[in-house]
Amino acid sequence: MATTDKPADTEYGKEVTPSPIPPPASGGAPPPWWSVVVDSSYIDVILRGLLFAASVVAIVVIVTGDQTELVPNPLTRSVEYRKAEFNNSPAFIYFVVAFSVAGLYAIITIFALILKPNFKIKFLLYFLLWDALLLGVVASATGAAGAVGYVGLKGNDHVGWFKICNRYDKFCRHIGASLAVALFASIVVVLLIWLSSIKLHRRIPK
Amino acid sequence: MATTDKPADTEYGKEVTPSPIPPPASGGAPPPWWSVVVDSSYIDVILRGLLFAASVVAIVVIVTGDQTELVPNPLTRSVEYRKAEFNNSPAFIYFVVAFSVAGLYAIITIFALILKPNFKIKFLLYFLLWDALLLGVVASATGAAGAVGYVGLKGNDHVGWFKICNRYDKFCRHIGASLAVALFASIVVVLLIWLSSIKLHRRIPK
Repeated sequence: MATTDKPADTEYGKEVTPSPIPPPASGGAPPPWWSVVVDSSYIDVILRGLLFAASVVAIVVIVTGDQTELVPNPLTRSVEYRKAEFNNSPAFIYFVVAFSVAGLYAIITIFALILKPNFKIKFLLYFLLWDALLLGVVASATGAAGAVGYVGLKGNDHVGWFKICNRYDKFCRHIGASLAVALFASIVVVLLIWLSSIKLHRRIPK
Repeated sequence: MATTDKPADTEYGKEVTPSPIPPPASGGAPPPWWSVVVDSSYIDVILRGLLFAASVVAIVVIVTGDQTELVPNPLTRSVEYRKAEFNNSPAFIYFVVAFSVAGLYAIITIFALILKPNFKIKFLLYFLLWDALLLGVVASATGAAGAVGYVGLKGNDHVGWFKICNRYDKFCRHIGASLAVALFASIVVVLLIWLSSIKLHRRIPK
């Protein structure tokens, strides 16, 4: 018994990381099927990696969407070259800023999880608090860009806002693709909050 | 000792509600100043009440903002009456639907907390999961309505979308007031998530 009680990872400390989180009090019932996913220490890092990747893709796709087209000018009754780019609209600028913050936050938390595995149970709460704030930022940015993109796609006859996607097709394709990735990133943030909540709840003794 | 160990609330059960949540394991350190707020069982109901009130106010203010004005029609070179109302824009419709869901959710959870006080520790987790989803809905609705409202306020010269708030002043005042209340409601949902997270974390034995 004494040999098994002694910590076995003093020699191979870099390979076998001791788990700082005590296993959840399961009682007598067998653990549910999803407990493997929730108790894994990698799922948090994987989700944050997905959030980082999605943020970078969303930014790159919307920034590279600028398109120059010949557009008739009703005032001068002539045609002229006009460029559509993301920073024509404050909503798209907010979108890029919000996902820059999300990508940076994802990187910081990944490094924190990897470099300081002993702080995991403290991180669970801190990350949950920051994740909630980030969800607000990311979801509102997706909503704002989506609303302006929808006006660009369909126009609004009631107030005389013309659609622009019939002319700027490449620009609108980039906006749409970026919005789809942004929606995925928002769902990842919701999953991160769910995961941390379930992990916290499972540490409470029954 | 035996008299104090006996539950004292058998006679006055309606006045003294037994707390189903065990007090947090505080160790030897004195509890921090904010623990009074976090441990209170009323703060959750109060915040959800605020969420309900804010949702109702946001909906009522945006729905009652319709305004009819004489507007020049450039096609017929005449003036005509045109009505601005919230359901001219899909973003505002989404806004009203999202805050209807938020108000309904707030009412349901308030009743759940009041009628089933014994389930509080289970509710903590379930409410946290649903609150995160609601934050995504409410924040994206606020962002979407805010982006369309901003285009209405400032216009967008790059794509030729005219501002409408110089003409429809009452309509825009209602939109702006509704957005301010919606922002408050979103912050309340973030606070609800923070509160549940801290409550969960404080039940974990150190």
